[in-house]
Amino acid sequence: MFESAELGHKIDKETYKQAVPELRAALLEAQYELREQGKIPVVVLVSGQDGAGKGETINILYEWMDPRFLSTLAFSTPTDEEQQRPVMWRYWRALPPKGRISMFAGSWYSSPIHDHIEGTMTQAAVDQRIDQINRFEAMLVNEGALVLKFWFHLTREGQRRRLKALEKDPRTAWRVTQWNWDRLKTYDKLQETVGHVLRMTNTPWAPWIIMEGEDDRYRSLTTGKILLDAIRQRLAGANKQTTPVAIPVPINLDGRDVLSELNLSHKIVKKDFEIELAKWQGKLSELVRDPRFKQHSVICVFEGSDAAGKGGAIRRITAAMDARDYQIIPIAAPTEEERAQPYMWRFWRHIPRIGRVAIFDRSWYGRVLVERVEGFCAEADWLRAYTEINDFEHELAASGAVIVKFWLQISKEEQLKRFKEREKVEFKRFKITDEDWRNREKWAEYHTAICDMVDRTSTGNAPWTLVEANDKNYGRIKILKTLCERLEAVIIGNTGKPAKLNESTKLKKSSNQKKS
Amino acid sequence: MFESAELGHKIDKETYKQAVPELRAALLEAQYELREQGKIPVVVLVSGQDGAGKGETINILYEWMDPRFLSTLAFSTPTDEEQQRPVMWRYWRALPPKGRISMFAGSWYSSPIHDHIEGTMTQAAVDQRIDQINRFEAMLVNEGALVLKFWFHLTREGQRRRLKALEKDPRTAWRVTQWNWDRLKTYDKLQETVGHVLRMTNTPWAPWIIMEGEDDRYRSLTTGKILLDAIRQRLAGANKQTTPVAIPVPINLDGRDVLSELNLSHKIVKKDFEIELAKWQGKLSELVRDPRFKQHSVICVFEGSDAAGKGGAIRRITAAMDARDYQIIPIAAPTEEERAQPYMWRFWRHIPRIGRVAIFDRSWYGRVLVERVEGFCAEADWLRAYTEINDFEHELAASGAVIVKFWLQISKEEQLKRFKEREKVEFKRFKITDEDWRNREKWAEYHTAICDMVDRTSTGNAPWTLVEANDKNYGRIKILKTLCERLEAVIIGNTGKPAKLNESTKLKKSSNQKKS
Repeated sequence: MFESAELGHKIDKETYKQAVPELRAALLEAQYELREQGKIPVVVLVSGQDGAGKGETINILYEWMDPRFLSTLAFSTPTDEEQQRPVMWRYWRALPPKGRISMFAGSWYSSPIHDHIEGTMTQAAVDQRIDQINRFEAMLVNEGALVLKFWFHLTREGQRRRLKALEKDPRTAWRVTQWNWDRLKTYDKLQETVGHVLRMTNTPWAPWIIMEGEDDRYRSLTTGKILLDAIRQRLAGANKQTTPVAIPVPINLDGRDVLSELNLSHKIVKKDFEIELAKWQGKLSELVRDPRFKQHSVICVFEGSDAAGKGGAIRRITAAMDARDYQIIPIAAPTEEERAQPYMWRFWRHIPRIGRVAIFDRSWYGRVLVERVEGFCAEADWLRAYTEINDFEHELAASGAVIVKFWLQISKEEQLKRFKEREKVEFKRFKITDEDWRNREKWAEYHTAICDMVDRTSTGNAPWTLVEANDKNYGRIKILKTLCERLEAVIIGNTGKPAKLNESTKLKKSSNQKKS
Repeated sequence: MFESAELGHKIDKETYKQAVPELRAALLEAQYELREQGKIPVVVLVSGQDGAGKGETINILYEWMDPRFLSTLAFSTPTDEEQQRPVMWRYWRALPPKGRISMFAGSWYSSPIHDHIEGTMTQAAVDQRIDQINRFEAMLVNEGALVLKFWFHLTREGQRRRLKALEKDPRTAWRVTQWNWDRLKTYDKLQETVGHVLRMTNTPWAPWIIMEGEDDRYRSLTTGKILLDAIRQRLAGANKQTTPVAIPVPINLDGRDVLSELNLSHKIVKKDFEIELAKWQGKLSELVRDPRFKQHSVICVFEGSDAAGKGGAIRRITAAMDARDYQIIPIAAPTEEERAQPYMWRFWRHIPRIGRVAIFDRSWYGRVLVERVEGFCAEADWLRAYTEINDFEHELAASGAVIVKFWLQISKEEQLKRFKEREKVEFKRFKITDEDWRNREKWAEYHTAICDMVDRTSTGNAPWTLVEANDKNYGRIKILKTLCERLEAVIIGNTGKPAKLNESTKLKKSSNQKKS
């Protein structure tokens, strides 16, 4: 892989001086067109060996382009904030919006390569990370990003020469530390690790560009030209593809599905409700204050039919908690800033630190619900979303999050009743819109989308709980109980296995037990 | 993921009896159309819990369809033949040709799931295998296959009921063993492992179809309908996509590349050649007879310009070996049988067992050389081939193969000279065709393709050695020497690191040493 980058490539001063003005003008023009069009985010990874010219390259690109619409992201030891979230979180946050270019000095590749060489990450763990990276980059590309991954390579001798030269120049001497010289000693080990990582992540959608780093003029000019050509190609609309998707074959021979099987007549009378509510709120309050909870976070997802009572259920949860410990994130139409990012970005930004609770009132499942039903995104987009969502939730779980997802289901009749009630009550009228009435007409399409969602995204780490919500009391207690049981299982070191879906919660019995 | 498959789905006898005739007719028709069209291989994985009806489903599909164009593949403990090759080899061999349906009773999923439950495969190793599986299935889909993955699910109670029923029926009692009952005890562990594996392999291109296995009629009818609808959709040409690919940006600012840097004037005079030849052939002969070689195989790949001397070089290698230990595989245009399979299939079939040597005279690199240059395949196809080839060679290396790849390069003038010579010599005239002259006209396109090939597929496990072949003697010795050094490094337990590319082989010196 490194053969072409060991030939001693060089550009002489004269050629360079002649080529630069034209390249600069073209780069600026491409950059403006990119902004104007506002569709393509450009992710540039600038990586490579110590002394191979990563910093110089970034500097020269700043010189050549309009720095107002460039950003550079460097990553060192993860901050507190970052350590308490999924490992990829720091990179998710840093992605450029559409129309802009971000240069990553150090990226999601730095830590697996570094940690493996230091002996703190096994080969198998590196391979798991590689798989995660490939899925992440595929998602970026599917979302329209142009991903350019540069690796600046030096031969061992070349690296020695570069470090010496940097050390000699007073302007750059500070950059060369003992650590760099030590790295040179492990040149072979680095090359072996890098070779493996680069090969495994050299995907058709985001291949590596391996370039010789020794000659400044060659490296700068080549990087600039590659960046220019790649942007031009994408602006010209070349070859936009997404991951192949299998079209779902909807088959339901006996008309039974997870929604139709719900028993919506479950009820809890007021007296029992008060007792149960106190019991479970008390329990929840204890659980989130338990010192062992400090290693975890909670991510609650509320989805449900319009007027199914999401807000009321959320209030019954938050009533048991300190307002400093939780955050409610209501999801509406994406903002302009959010539309300029990959679909998942607007959720990434609200991921809680450990020790905290985030409650999503609607969520990333909009992709496979409203966006699917209303045709707001292409079939290929919502079909690949199931995998993306599972990957996302898996990473959350791996970082210590307890993910609890509720679908609140009411009957079509109950919904009609609630709509009409809302229209009558002055302070509730704002809650009902024409859109709600329109959604109602698509009841059957939503029904299919919900069943598919449960089938494809109810996983061991992040199971769905379907809530029979025709009776508000019943629904609220089931939600509180499920949340407590999941949390308890995790905190007492259990697997966090969920309460069985559709389990007929024996509320009567347990309230009796409490009394006795 | 299993929620919809725990509802107690059932089809009554009457409904079943009415539905079957129509379904059978339609399946037969779809099957014939599939054959007629001859473009789509259908891969059906029939997997699931013990007693969930895998065997019954396969039997009923045989009853409903034309069994002449169906095949079923079962896999138990790998045979000797299989153990001595990459783990996926047994499945590669078993793929259906285009237009046919193969049902896999047990598949590439069986061993990771089974071994993990038995405790002989770590989570990380499972995840590595999962990645390999996802890449493999993506390749199948990119090559046009329809991949349907069925998982028949049972609740714990349902499994107990099924096993009891099977045991009671004298026709099926033999199928229930103590092992099955033991598995029931570890139901939760199985579910946990399966849940993880299914989630991670639930890709957009080959998603799982999870189905309740308890009721025979429901399971059979649903499987049949899904199979039918999926085949019909694909016959109708729905949604054919391939993996997104980044278009390469060709940049070569200083005109230097791995080919242009070769010093084609290297020469060895006849006297030295004889000495060197004897030396390296002797060494090779020892190496392949070394008992330690029995844990490895050798895969030599020869590519090169027309008339570069591949055949002569190969003969110098085989002269050092016993004819029973090696096989030369000349690659010409694919046969009809080979065209009905994924691109890589015709190479898979020739993978040697350990202890043996396979020499490919041209190879899978045709995809990124002649097929690219001549436009025999789409750009997206050869662009994804680099990754597929690297994956393939990586699996070979992991199974103990030493992969040694040679590109033989001659100058355009030297080629002309050889062409003319060949036309003059009676017994060599067959070696020169119009095609060779046409290829010559595309010298520049081939040049680019070769450089890209080396950049993208020269990896730690499978590096390219570029051979300056204007002088046949020099080329032959470099090849023998490289092969010996790679083999020696592997056999003496070294990393198998290749001789440096373009290294100026100090032949003179070493031959002197021998004399002294």
